[in-house]
Amino acid sequence: MSHYDQLIAHYQTIHHFNHAQAMLGWDAAANMPAGGSEARSNAMAELSVHVHRLSTQPQLEDWFGHAEQAPLTTEQQASLREMKRQWQQATLVPEKLVQAQSIAGSKCEHTWRTQRQENDWKGFEKNWKEVVALSREEAKIRGEALGLTAYDAMLDKFEPGTTTSSLDMLFTDVKTWLPELIEKALEKQRSDSIILPSGTFSTDRQKALGLEVMKLLQFDFNHGRLDQSVHPFCGGVPSDVRITTRYDEKDFVQALMGIVHETGHARYEQGLPKAFSGLPVGEARSMGIHESQSLFFEMQVGRSKSFISHLSRLSMDAFNAHQDPVFAEENLYKIYTQVEKGFIRVDADELTYPAHVILRYEIERDLINGVIEHTDVPDIWDEKMKASLGLSTQDNYKNGCMQDIHWTDGAFGYFPSYTLGAMYAAQYKASMVKSLDLEVAIESGDLSPIFQWLNDNIWSQASLHSTDELVKRATGETLNAAHFRKHLEGRYL
Amino acid sequence: MSHYDQLIAHYQTIHHFNHAQAMLGWDAAANMPAGGSEARSNAMAELSVHVHRLSTQPQLEDWFGHAEQAPLTTEQQASLREMKRQWQQATLVPEKLVQAQSIAGSKCEHTWRTQRQENDWKGFEKNWKEVVALSREEAKIRGEALGLTAYDAMLDKFEPGTTTSSLDMLFTDVKTWLPELIEKALEKQRSDSIILPSGTFSTDRQKALGLEVMKLLQFDFNHGRLDQSVHPFCGGVPSDVRITTRYDEKDFVQALMGIVHETGHARYEQGLPKAFSGLPVGEARSMGIHESQSLFFEMQVGRSKSFISHLSRLSMDAFNAHQDPVFAEENLYKIYTQVEKGFIRVDADELTYPAHVILRYEIERDLINGVIEHTDVPDIWDEKMKASLGLSTQDNYKNGCMQDIHWTDGAFGYFPSYTLGAMYAAQYKASMVKSLDLEVAIESGDLSPIFQWLNDNIWSQASLHSTDELVKRATGETLNAAHFRKHLEGRYL
Ligand SMILES: [Zn+2]
Ligand SMILES: [Zn+2]
Repeated sequence: MSHYDQLIAHYQTIHHFNHAQAMLGWDAAANMPAGGSEARSNAMAELSVHVHRLSTQPQLEDWFGHAEQAPLTTEQQASLREMKRQWQQATLVPEKLVQAQSIAGSKCEHTWRTQRQENDWKGFEKNWKEVVALSREEAKIRGEALGLTAYDAMLDKFEPGTTTSSLDMLFTDVKTWLPELIEKALEKQRSDSIILPSGTFSTDRQKALGLEVMKLLQFDFNHGRLDQSVHPFCGGVPSDVRITTRYDEKDFVQALMGIVHETGHARYEQGLPKAFSGLPVGEARSMGIHESQSLFFEMQVGRSKSFISHLSRLSMDAFNAHQDPVFAEENLYKIYTQVEKGFIRVDADELTYPAHVILRYEIERDLINGVIEHTDVPDIWDEKMKASLGLSTQDNYKNGCMQDIHWTDGAFGYFPSYTLGAMYAAQYKASMVKSLDLEVAIESGDLSPIFQWLNDNIWSQASLHSTDELVKRATGETLNAAHFRKHLEGRYL
Repeated sequence: MSHYDQLIAHYQTIHHFNHAQAMLGWDAAANMPAGGSEARSNAMAELSVHVHRLSTQPQLEDWFGHAEQAPLTTEQQASLREMKRQWQQATLVPEKLVQAQSIAGSKCEHTWRTQRQENDWKGFEKNWKEVVALSREEAKIRGEALGLTAYDAMLDKFEPGTTTSSLDMLFTDVKTWLPELIEKALEKQRSDSIILPSGTFSTDRQKALGLEVMKLLQFDFNHGRLDQSVHPFCGGVPSDVRITTRYDEKDFVQALMGIVHETGHARYEQGLPKAFSGLPVGEARSMGIHESQSLFFEMQVGRSKSFISHLSRLSMDAFNAHQDPVFAEENLYKIYTQVEKGFIRVDADELTYPAHVILRYEIERDLINGVIEHTDVPDIWDEKMKASLGLSTQDNYKNGCMQDIHWTDGAFGYFPSYTLGAMYAAQYKASMVKSLDLEVAIESGDLSPIFQWLNDNIWSQASLHSTDELVKRATGETLNAAHFRKHLEGRYL
């Protein structure tokens, strides 16, 4: 067996343990009773340690050295490059730290579920302190090894190639035009009359509706399913993608669009090339590219007039309410494009969303770089929310810094991906319209041409190319935020 | 760290991977779409191999040698003995064989789900051939090492201490009185008029009813849940026990009693001592003792007149049918004690059940010992069914040898546990009545005294003693099948 083949077999072995880890994580969120938490945390920590051990085996250095000398096809070279990237990422962090992070993260995340409901910052802070300390330690170790600042080293995990200075530039630009655009949109929508959903939308019917919409979006039910969890996410493995949502029986609109969003993530996973199954080169390119798929589904497809026409029809059917003006196309479109300054990121509209992301970015950047302490976060959050959206979160932790799941298990560096994803999605659309008529495809109910484009340009490409190269091959240029601004102005002005 | 402590840490590590394995297995049965099967099989095979590798690490021999020389408490000695037993069991089977069995078993079991529906013996036989061949290989290896016949070596996995000759004696005795007892019971019931359930019993309501019954049986919902699968089972881990059932919307009685049965398994798991959590000595004693709990719940508690009175009330409430004579106590009691010669083991009544088990025992004994071939099984099954219950299964594979899940993944040696369990359960009852009034406890709706007895005598004892010792401490004698016969005669004559 060549060194290259040994590496392939080794990374497929790692993948099997990651499969277990992914399913245990999904189960913990979707099924597990509270009393199962401790044993589950221990089992998942053990799996983490084992994957870390496999990912850092001493012989790998030798195998990589030899494999790089061997004659390889272009695809094999890409495969080798991605294995090596994962190896380098893994070897930086000591096993003990990985284990401590897994235990602290599980504990913090699990207790957060009730602490958030109870607005219990004091209780949360005790667990989170440890998570932050361990993440800083990780960032310091990674940064020193990679010659990056602490926070840049965390960014590198989710968005290889992205740096604080590029994000500072990008977000500084957004901050020059976004506030005015929000005000103008609010002004424009001032006279709109919207009929808000009220009454009971049973979980069962909402789920049935969600499944219909997933069919329209060609989710492959032979390779995945829909369940419920407190914080919606897309988990599982490419051959069995588990998406979740959270239903509110008083209102169906958030859960429904949430399903559209997670279906975007899911189709990316389901569309990854089988030929590289279980290998790093066969995985999603980055978190930003992942969000570009969910946000393409949600923002470019889901909130278009033609798609909302489907949602109108399907929701009338689901709730047996064909005369109810709530479900009228125009009304649903107004609901789904309504701009509102709110506390909650996951409930935020497309236009105010970047403000939420920029706030988190600035805080986590300073937190990881040691500029601020974790106990400073509530006050800084309050300050920045007042500045960006005019809202105070004083003593309102559950709707402030305790609202997101991300920081509970130390996923610092992830938040920027959301806005990068929105920007990429707008750029795909601008490129896609050159070769196909999106509105016609959506109206027809057969969205295949759109999915074909995404499959050809993004899904099937997995991690064969760098992010810049992937986006350039798909759209003819690297990230250009002008498309995002144009998209927002087109929809909201 | 002492060698004993090293062993403890090592077996707790193994337990974490077993936790993952248990949850993946539950998920495969309860949630997984068909398309997820291949990747899941591979992941589970990898986990099997890893557990096998951990269970057979060369240094263990040395650790056991040293630990046995060290001064240990009685409990530590028991813990060491059980670790050593698992080590010996594991070291017998080569890693390659374990992996091949896991892959062949997953494949056979997964395709069996549709093949059974389609009565497709030809298709099933192709996969099963491999499972049988690998099990024979395993039995041969184990037998040679342990100085046992092939089939005895398989029995030893599930029922340490039980042999073919003891089972032959036990079952030969049962065969002398069971047929006559069945005939007499049928004769006695001939004039009974039973109102059978008909109409639609929705899955939702059946599930709600099942949950009520689980509450009555004091299932701990903070440490477990109820779901659905084709073949009901009890899985998960002690801190998070996953039981499943299968609902038939035309009839609720089987699913309901199935839940009582699985709750018995679940409470044993939930009652295992926390002090030995994750260690072999903290696990259930044997499969027969496990079945003794589920069958105590099902046969000694569940089918008693006083418990059926609760089922009557709760099912009337669940289906909002307080006037319906189907749910009357007397009628439900007749349904739950009705004797009928049928094809399907899992649907069989208490009295004909041992006939199903003995049939399987005789076939798997001869199959593993190489006396018959896997292709002979349908004909022999037909022959034995005709002899024992007067029913032919000619060309009726789905209701014949393809009806059970057990053989699909090579669990040969397991079937006798069912009847051993029924015998133990009757023996506990005979002992329990000396110190407490079961009927009064059940009638009161607070079954705590019964569970306290089981907890003190069985659950909390885990694997601290051998099966014989456990049963003797609990009841004053080792297995005595006379209690079983007396119980059956008391109920059916
Ligand atoms: Zn997303
Ligand atoms: Zn059972």
